[in-house]
Amino acid sequence: MSGSLSVVGLGPGGPGQQTAETAAVLAAADAVYGYTPYLARVPEVPGQARCASDNREEIERAGAALARAAAGARVVVVSGGDPGVFAMAAAVCEAVERGPAEWRALDVSILPGVTAMLAVAARVGAPLGHDFCALSLSDNLKPWPVVEQRLRAAAGAGFALALYNPASRARPWQLARALELLLEHLPASTPVVFGRAVGRAGERVSIVPLVKAPAEPADMSTLVLVGSPETRVVERPGRPALVYTPRTAQRDGA
Amino acid sequence: MSGSLSVVGLGPGGPGQQTAETAAVLAAADAVYGYTPYLARVPEVPGQARCASDNREEIERAGAALARAAAGARVVVVSGGDPGVFAMAAAVCEAVERGPAEWRALDVSILPGVTAMLAVAARVGAPLGHDFCALSLSDNLKPWPVVEQRLRAAAGAGFALALYNPASRARPWQLARALELLLEHLPASTPVVFGRAVGRAGERVSIVPLVKAPAEPADMSTLVLVGSPETRVVERPGRPALVYTPRTAQRDGA
Repeated sequence: MSGSLSVVGLGPGGPGQQTAETAAVLAAADAVYGYTPYLARVPEVPGQARCASDNREEIERAGAALARAAAGARVVVVSGGDPGVFAMAAAVCEAVERGPAEWRALDVSILPGVTAMLAVAARVGAPLGHDFCALSLSDNLKPWPVVEQRLRAAAGAGFALALYNPASRARPWQLARALELLLEHLPASTPVVFGRAVGRAGERVSIVPLVKAPAEPADMSTLVLVGSPETRVVERPGRPALVYTPRTAQRDGA
Repeated sequence: MSGSLSVVGLGPGGPGQQTAETAAVLAAADAVYGYTPYLARVPEVPGQARCASDNREEIERAGAALARAAAGARVVVVSGGDPGVFAMAAAVCEAVERGPAEWRALDVSILPGVTAMLAVAARVGAPLGHDFCALSLSDNLKPWPVVEQRLRAAAGAGFALALYNPASRARPWQLARALELLLEHLPASTPVVFGRAVGRAGERVSIVPLVKAPAEPADMSTLVLVGSPETRVVERPGRPALVYTPRTAQRDGA
């Protein structure tokens, strides 16, 4: 048995934000598994099988990929961004734990990538330049009260925040509720960055104060960064503002 | 004036974990600025100036790079990992804010990279597969009580943790103190990952339960990941264990 499974991240945008090792592993794969829009970003290789599936089917996709690797194929599972941040690496580990014993003997590797929050942060400056948290707003996989409790804890302690999965058609109210809750813990002027499809067609970036953030549009392609009380906006004539969180923190916190 | 300043991340390890756009910008630069060991990882280009400086001199380095860009050069500032995570992008933004007006007119871009916590996480599975915080243990730039308060808030709310700058010769006791504090909030069996120089010569990765973690060695090249109460270890015969945090959270938190 010489099969293998690699879980890779395509980065946030074009091939320029992908790592060289990810590009090499994709080019050598016998089969590539992924959510349909991510697979569409992978260059086609003659003779390579491409197995697209829907967003909600992570565990089934992981299991199918592991079974194919166990049968001897070089299999790659793709995520957008980094595979370890709200993406396929955890689903593959879970499938290995629950699956047949032979899956534990497989050569499984995970190759890191540039996750969306780093790309959005880079576009505007360095809003994640000091301590920060990454939090999914999806309540498909955890109860909403857990989301609220984590928002309060993180903002109250002075972390900046990266909010993944802020909104979808099935989850229309969660982001506005989260931002209103954060207003109880943070100044109304706290900078909030909305980054949609950063590095891809349809990119849109906006910087608004927290008090105005609940009215901003967001969808499944949006990542939202919320500053800490220390985060600053530097206006630049003729250029977009820079947003950054200083490396120093004087504040004792809440 | 046609100068520009790019702030880039070299990724955690070899050139395989660097993005294509970062490699291209480095190859085209007139001058490259950075901390000496990071500069040593940049391929030399004939005619390109290389300006190495010490670790503690971020603001001075940023100012020197901005001044050179303002004089018309294509300048690149390098960080290890991602430039926006405890690295040079925030220092450059701060220097722009404090500096002469002409620096605000400059073409400044920040190119994201793979930050160390993503590389260490990928090496062992997906310990950052659900909500997590990134926190610097350095008390050079913030008071130690702020570090303790953030550790309590994050662990108490169920976040996994990535601890940057866990130890140095000048800060020998902070990591053990942080881990002992986390033991008041987390099960003794919580998985802790020590990743040293991941992707480079001298790589060493270990997985230990939190109760044993204070005795593990760590230095400036080490990144420490602390799981949440949901983080799991999957033993594999003949292969390293997988560590992952499931995508689901049932727990209501503390």
